[in-house]
Amino acid sequence: MPIINVDLGARSYPIHIGTGLLSRPGLIAAALPSRDVLIVTNDVVAPLYLATLREALSGYATRELILPDGERYKTLDTVSAILDELVAAGFGRDCTVLALGGGVIGDMAGFAAACYQRGVGFVQVPTTLLAQVDSSVGGKTAVNHSAGKNLIGAFYQPLCVIADTAALVTLDEREYRAGLAEVFKYGLILDRDFFAWLELALPALLRREPEALEQAITRSCEIKADIVARDETEQGIRALLNLGHTFGHAIEAVHGYGRWLHGEAVAAGMMMAAQFSVRVGSLQASAVSRIEALLEAAGLPTRPPPLQYQRFFAALHRDKKVQAGQLRLVLLDDIGRARLTSEFAGDELERFLHQSLEAAA
Amino acid sequence: MPIINVDLGARSYPIHIGTGLLSRPGLIAAALPSRDVLIVTNDVVAPLYLATLREALSGYATRELILPDGERYKTLDTVSAILDELVAAGFGRDCTVLALGGGVIGDMAGFAAACYQRGVGFVQVPTTLLAQVDSSVGGKTAVNHSAGKNLIGAFYQPLCVIADTAALVTLDEREYRAGLAEVFKYGLILDRDFFAWLELALPALLRREPEALEQAITRSCEIKADIVARDETEQGIRALLNLGHTFGHAIEAVHGYGRWLHGEAVAAGMMMAAQFSVRVGSLQASAVSRIEALLEAAGLPTRPPPLQYQRFFAALHRDKKVQAGQLRLVLLDDIGRARLTSEFAGDELERFLHQSLEAAA
Repeated sequence: MPIINVDLGARSYPIHIGTGLLSRPGLIAAALPSRDVLIVTNDVVAPLYLATLREALSGYATRELILPDGERYKTLDTVSAILDELVAAGFGRDCTVLALGGGVIGDMAGFAAACYQRGVGFVQVPTTLLAQVDSSVGGKTAVNHSAGKNLIGAFYQPLCVIADTAALVTLDEREYRAGLAEVFKYGLILDRDFFAWLELALPALLRREPEALEQAITRSCEIKADIVARDETEQGIRALLNLGHTFGHAIEAVHGYGRWLHGEAVAAGMMMAAQFSVRVGSLQASAVSRIEALLEAAGLPTRPPPLQYQRFFAALHRDKKVQAGQLRLVLLDDIGRARLTSEFAGDELERFLHQSLEAAA
Repeated sequence: MPIINVDLGARSYPIHIGTGLLSRPGLIAAALPSRDVLIVTNDVVAPLYLATLREALSGYATRELILPDGERYKTLDTVSAILDELVAAGFGRDCTVLALGGGVIGDMAGFAAACYQRGVGFVQVPTTLLAQVDSSVGGKTAVNHSAGKNLIGAFYQPLCVIADTAALVTLDEREYRAGLAEVFKYGLILDRDFFAWLELALPALLRREPEALEQAITRSCEIKADIVARDETEQGIRALLNLGHTFGHAIEAVHGYGRWLHGEAVAAGMMMAAQFSVRVGSLQASAVSRIEALLEAAGLPTRPPPLQYQRFFAALHRDKKVQAGQLRLVLLDDIGRARLTSEFAGDELERFLHQSLEAAA
């Protein structure tokens, strides 16, 4: 069973990856500072995995909070409800918030753990592909604001991450494919060989073959753990993980949260980043064709939905990477080589956006 | 002009102490990462100091948010309003939230700065004695929950603290005296000589003589900066700063926030801690007399208001220092020597509480 260490000094933690981990009691228990555990999950995941987890934690003073499923509940109000539950439980600073679910649950439970008593224990048990390869690792927690995604949050590292690949068997097909977009991202930004492997392994991944899955998740987590260890709070290299996300977040904000899944928006966003990279002369057009082919084979969108230009442009500029009013984008020099840059002409970007959004309409 | 450095590696910051600092433009500006500044203040402080600050920051893209005054507004809802303002301003990750006011404003503005885009710049301009000697230094930010004080928050350090002692001239007498309680605390926990100096200097302090004030604030900040540098997130020695606060927070929670000022509750709480220290045999009764005399001379309460025992007992156990259900208290071995301990008999504490609360009734 692969264990990847996220190396952050005193706050280092392991990511356990494998099948059936959820029912191994010792694994989670080893990370808990006390018997007080609040399990935060949602009404889709709870019927599938809560009983197993409960059993693994028998002997612990567990409480459970089952939230409605969906990105539209990823708000400060829901985090407030989690905090109320911790208060109602009478839990102290030595308690743990355990997130059982996808990225939305992890982001909210993590933010609540960061804020309760200025920080309590936090364990991630991601049950979606996207959460296993991306959101559960690296300590980004957040909720959405009506004006933009993840505008309110904290950097807060978990005590451990338990990625049980068996949980992916029940994952909805569309959710699963959306998760693949983030896997592709790692190849695109940093690992040309991994991208080539993904092109070959895609049929096996689409069949969710355990070995292919474990390999894809492990390599994704390795890359992410390495980046996070080098740049926890995104002062530099970590921004590369946002390939496709500046465009993707704008798609989600303008199209309406939840209409497209996050991974779908990121897929279209990565295509836009690749196309714009060609436009500014840093990427070859043949690379875009390879990216497009992989996304299409995975059933992911390769262009944005029809959106109004002005609203899209405004949403783009609410991105967290904007500095002194200047938009910064992650662009590609090659497959496996990305960089963060603000060195492009504003009117070039505007023309590109007009064309992209018109093509979509 | 004294400058004290809070030594936290890359997150170190200066505390500037002196008279008239608010109108020195370069001082604040030097700390700001960009031109975007949201000033958060309240409707009592704004008419007194906002114009001066605005002038010192001319040339900056300042926005202002004037909140109603009072501890009862120190809620997640108000922080949410600050976040809305930052979003409405279109401010990016390089903006700064500047707290102009007392502890309530600093706690909320700091928590908002910690959460907005997972952390933006934060500057403390404390205008009360309590904020200058205590809450503006050390990075504790928080809001209250109906179940207890400061239950929701973050450790988040400012970029700098500007303590303009001239602002204390306009401070309400009761607020001013409440601030002295926290000054006394530093002497009690760590500096016997400072406590003795305070006994002598009290008349000058009550007249708010600039030299005495500067000396009291500087020594308080030195002690706090030293403790915070050694234990930022309160794993150990920092807990000593909570002398009187476990009882004090329970007084505030049960008596109703805002009826007693925080410093008043802490004064009564310190007396209770001292008396209980005598009860468990660690402190001499003569020390309690000295503490009581100083508090009385400063016009501070030396006993709790009449409160119902059960509610007080329950509030006490919601303290953030409770570990595995066990209450921990900061007790005194001497004036200038405190320790955190859970080594006392529960029934001894219960008898002590019954007597203290009955004496108050």
